[in-house]
Amino acid sequence: MKRNEAFDEVDARCVDTLRFLSVDMVQKADSGHPGLPLGAAPMAWVLWSRFLRHAPADPHWPDRDRFVLSAGHGSALLYSLLFLTGYDLSLDDLGQFRQWGSRTPGHPERSHTPGVEITTGPLGQGLSNAVGMAIAEAQLAARYNRTEHDVVDHRTFVVASDGDLMEGVASEAASLAGHLKLGKLVVLYDDNSVTLAAGTPITFSEDRAARFAAYGWHTETVDDGNDLAAIGAAIERACNERARPSLVLVRTHIGYGSPEQDSYKAHGSPLGEKDVVATKRTLGWPESPAFFVPEDARERAREAIDRGRRLVDEWKSRLHAYRVALPEEADELEQRLRGALPQRWDASIPSFAPDAKGIATRVAAGKVLNEIATHLPALTGGSADLDPSTHTALQGLGEFNPPPASPRSKQDTPNGPWSYAGRNIHFGVREHAMGAILNGLAAHGAMLPFGATFLAFSDYMRPPIRLAALMGLQVVYVFTHDSIVLGEDGPTHQPVEQIAGLRAVPGLNVIRPCDANETAVAWRVAIETRDRPTALVLTRQKVPVLDPSTVASADGLRRGAYVLKDFGRSDRTPPALILIATGSEVSLALQAAEKLAAERVAVRVVSMPCWELFEAQDGAYRESVLPRAVRARVAIEAASPMGWDRWVGDAGDVIGVDRFGASAPGNEVMRRYGFDVENVVERARRCLG
Amino acid sequence: MKRNEAFDEVDARCVDTLRFLSVDMVQKADSGHPGLPLGAAPMAWVLWSRFLRHAPADPHWPDRDRFVLSAGHGSALLYSLLFLTGYDLSLDDLGQFRQWGSRTPGHPERSHTPGVEITTGPLGQGLSNAVGMAIAEAQLAARYNRTEHDVVDHRTFVVASDGDLMEGVASEAASLAGHLKLGKLVVLYDDNSVTLAAGTPITFSEDRAARFAAYGWHTETVDDGNDLAAIGAAIERACNERARPSLVLVRTHIGYGSPEQDSYKAHGSPLGEKDVVATKRTLGWPESPAFFVPEDARERAREAIDRGRRLVDEWKSRLHAYRVALPEEADELEQRLRGALPQRWDASIPSFAPDAKGIATRVAAGKVLNEIATHLPALTGGSADLDPSTHTALQGLGEFNPPPASPRSKQDTPNGPWSYAGRNIHFGVREHAMGAILNGLAAHGAMLPFGATFLAFSDYMRPPIRLAALMGLQVVYVFTHDSIVLGEDGPTHQPVEQIAGLRAVPGLNVIRPCDANETAVAWRVAIETRDRPTALVLTRQKVPVLDPSTVASADGLRRGAYVLKDFGRSDRTPPALILIATGSEVSLALQAAEKLAAERVAVRVVSMPCWELFEAQDGAYRESVLPRAVRARVAIEAASPMGWDRWVGDAGDVIGVDRFGASAPGNEVMRRYGFDVENVVERARRCLG
Repeated sequence: MKRNEAFDEVDARCVDTLRFLSVDMVQKADSGHPGLPLGAAPMAWVLWSRFLRHAPADPHWPDRDRFVLSAGHGSALLYSLLFLTGYDLSLDDLGQFRQWGSRTPGHPERSHTPGVEITTGPLGQGLSNAVGMAIAEAQLAARYNRTEHDVVDHRTFVVASDGDLMEGVASEAASLAGHLKLGKLVVLYDDNSVTLAAGTPITFSEDRAARFAAYGWHTETVDDGNDLAAIGAAIERACNERARPSLVLVRTHIGYGSPEQDSYKAHGSPLGEKDVVATKRTLGWPESPAFFVPEDARERAREAIDRGRRLVDEWKSRLHAYRVALPEEADELEQRLRGALPQRWDASIPSFAPDAKGIATRVAAGKVLNEIATHLPALTGGSADLDPSTHTALQGLGEFNPPPASPRSKQDTPNGPWSYAGRNIHFGVREHAMGAILNGLAAHGAMLPFGATFLAFSDYMRPPIRLAALMGLQVVYVFTHDSIVLGEDGPTHQPVEQIAGLRAVPGLNVIRPCDANETAVAWRVAIETRDRPTALVLTRQKVPVLDPSTVASADGLRRGAYVLKDFGRSDRTPPALILIATGSEVSLALQAAEKLAAERVAVRVVSMPCWELFEAQDGAYRESVLPRAVRARVAIEAASPMGWDRWVGDAGDVIGVDRFGASAPGNEVMRRYGFDVENVVERARRCLG
Repeated sequence: MKRNEAFDEVDARCVDTLRFLSVDMVQKADSGHPGLPLGAAPMAWVLWSRFLRHAPADPHWPDRDRFVLSAGHGSALLYSLLFLTGYDLSLDDLGQFRQWGSRTPGHPERSHTPGVEITTGPLGQGLSNAVGMAIAEAQLAARYNRTEHDVVDHRTFVVASDGDLMEGVASEAASLAGHLKLGKLVVLYDDNSVTLAAGTPITFSEDRAARFAAYGWHTETVDDGNDLAAIGAAIERACNERARPSLVLVRTHIGYGSPEQDSYKAHGSPLGEKDVVATKRTLGWPESPAFFVPEDARERAREAIDRGRRLVDEWKSRLHAYRVALPEEADELEQRLRGALPQRWDASIPSFAPDAKGIATRVAAGKVLNEIATHLPALTGGSADLDPSTHTALQGLGEFNPPPASPRSKQDTPNGPWSYAGRNIHFGVREHAMGAILNGLAAHGAMLPFGATFLAFSDYMRPPIRLAALMGLQVVYVFTHDSIVLGEDGPTHQPVEQIAGLRAVPGLNVIRPCDANETAVAWRVAIETRDRPTALVLTRQKVPVLDPSTVASADGLRRGAYVLKDFGRSDRTPPALILIATGSEVSLALQAAEKLAAERVAVRVVSMPCWELFEAQDGAYRESVLPRAVRARVAIEAASPMGWDRWVGDAGDVIGVDRFGASAPGNEVMRRYGFDVENVVERARRCLG
């Protein structure tokens, strides 16, 4: 089917098939959201039949258009589309909607269902993820395409709801998308004037088209969301607009055709048997059987399979020609598409010489990051307007930005030229969108994204961090200024509870290295850990670089926790006391241990940069580091003590921060909060009894 | 000084005094942000000298205009304003900028400094807080003012930065402010084209005036941020616009007059001695002494003191006349302004009859909330578009909304008429703005705000929750759908790590009641706890209402944890085993305990709805509930196990959720995650050894 092919009765039946498959799924599950599918099925059908370049038989084809149902509560519509167009999803699967272990969970979940690009449901995220996908496409295209060799050329389409447009994360992402002129991003807005709780007039009366125009978007309006031709024409114009992202506002009716049409009651509850029948009658659909699929609708929709095969074949030919012309680029691209790391990606990671004065772990991380980035073209990212502080600028690797309007603007870009091939992404003061965009980059494939901000402001991006962990996406967070020691900026900028909060997220590795060399290993682990996100928690202040001739190798970080040094004991006897510390407090533990050792206490210092990695070790290793018999244990971490009881046990003690910080020079704050040698020694003595 | 009084040389000196006090503060502290004060001092001076109705000698005067420095990193400018206009803040205080215990911390902190309305620094928050303050003013004015009796009539002014406008939370709040037509909100935007890391051209090229116009705001543009008269005229027009909030875009130069003017390098570091001198020379300021205050500038600025006294006196006369005419209303208003609770605020809180089938705690909480609201006019709030699910609508207490454009729109508002006197605030799908607006309401005074969403989406509002706790503001969060048992919506909607994450926030009470009666007590505690925020964590599903004739009274909640029931033992012997549970898992613990008791195990069930309240009890009470000698303990909570080791100890066990949830009917999810009687009994037996 071509973009401009006229719509006929079979198209109309395809639309109704999508509607009633969705309604029947929700009804059978007795749970779900029928309102969106009834209203948005026409735009979905127009998009999927005329525009979306996809391959149902090859859902991972790298150059496919991406489709994101940002309004994830409309999952039944997405599953209906996938089934009808011939993905590996059966009517039985649809019948198992929202049941244990099914491939049709309540909200779309990446990796559960073929054709689902990304997990959506928390509003605003999907649209923002899509901005990340469009960035990925633009960066790949700029790096790899050559004249007559377009091996990367696809669009990102979104269906978004009122809720998506109300969420701040989407505002941030839309502002950035407009700034970046992401012309291959097209958002269909299911403008139905109703949200879960009410009509939009009581909360949401802004001029949405004007807002997106202010962001630099192209906008289109379709007055009748059932007019397939009008929707098609609007999407056509949106696709032809290459210099700006497009928002197509499609005026629809939530719960179209049902007795509760246009009411919030149609949003999130099954219609009920009676209303299902009434709706089918109104729209002229057979009342039974449920899950009815007219043969001509199925045939029409499944044309997508052959069309997809042809698209894939054409792309493979293009890629073949590319390989002949540009073998090195082809190797690199294919390696990235496979998700493999280059062989020598870690070739130039530095090791740091012992240095008592030391180096901030944020600075060490910046050096390591830059070395890795040289060898790992997939590595891309930036900060939420904090590069000079987070040390995450990739020197000389270019600014991901359209060319500047005026040459004068160039003065602020020391990282190289402005182009879509640039690997420094400037997120602006938009932490939340940064998190969601990182997810989009990772979900797109061929990208290994990182994002940086101060640890205190990781709070702004909790929702996408959670989603990265839920999806098992490889995203690296660089969180600097990691404790009250940041000092003068005061309690608003001093993290306290953030480390505990991050550790509580299932499936997220939180690593707080103690010095430059642990930092280098932490970055290695973050790159090698392909199936989950990693948060690096780094100091603003200098910390000593430990001397590997006097303490254990930083490679111990790979096991989460390790014996850094045993003071004043032979190898046979267990220590009397264990000091456990992370990050900047490890040096403090070593100093305290020296003092205790001088008093003839056999004391062990354990560096514990990552709880999650330690928990993944076998019991024997864990026992070797923290022997059950040693009950006198003190944990030292300049953060909320929450969770440390697990490691220090009933007889142990935790030197943490159980209140907010204060504005003063960092060393003074630390001293007043008990992070000095005297207090550690004193608390350790008490613990020894 | 009147609004229209012309600007003269003394005004210019006042501006420069503000500039160089700020510069000298930052330089002396060797830390801080000189860029904003140098650029924004003119607009600040125009606002504070001609428009702001404040009383330096009476900073808590209830009808003062509110001033919010949303760009909190410009704190030096705010302290300079407070000092210069005669607040109780000395030059010595300015000299102690960013030092331990000083009244001039790095970012403005509420309660530390007279005249600082709210703690700012995390970007986007202040502007959003200001929306809350403007809502508070509008609601109070609508409730109390009568013809010729305007006892509530003040504006809210904001100075905001690029970063504030980029943050999604501010976009959400601005959209809502436009919708609500908050005409007494005026935002001055310090449009300096530079952020911390770069010039805005590389991240922020949207048309900001057009965006705010799309939200329904009035906008003004001032091309020269040093033109006092032009700034004054623009603010004048903004103040005259009563039907829409106003954004005044003032084009300024960051670091004005300094060698680094217009560069991001002027943003966040001291200028350095050399550049301080250069800047003073450029602007014709004496190089020494530091902290120089020309006498005429001081005199001019301190006119604010007398002017403020007159404003307060006039207001007191108006209040007196009001009291004569409307004694009951005056009583109520004055009580609210004092921050006191009405005597019988809890008169009609219901108690719930025992009921094995039970009632969801969200439903019970909704009933309790509605009863309290009847007697407590300060109580106002709503949900982020989830009223039907969170049960937080205040029946019959009106919609806080300007009158609807069309009568048809009324169909969706079952809570009463639309007006600014309405106490149901509809936040829309804007959790983050909701949190920040609640802070603004609470900081305004005379308001006791609450806000509701699903517990999973509390992640969207972490930053304002933290700030409420940091400020000690009384805000009540109603977080429903509190565990994996919510079922079909799946892992995106099922909270896991949120309870642990909230417990990690210092100064926040997190209460998860086990049944309807604990819920009633929880709401009581939330209302009585005046100096900190409270998060209520509530079930979607029904839970049994416990029978006080067989278990301890729900009043035990006040102490955080209490012995709900001891099974199978005399009063003298300690139990062999303790089951500790919260929320919906308490009934499960009781069922398991019964089974264990039938096996002649002496088992205690402890209900532990609030860790923070329990930690605040004395050691004797804590020992009486959790005797040290009883080491066999099992905690049961359908959430991340993080932190429970503290309560179960080395020999204990935790039945929690250490991975994400799954989409399926709730009871099935619970069973598969180990929340059934069999598993609890089994784990308890293992714990007994």
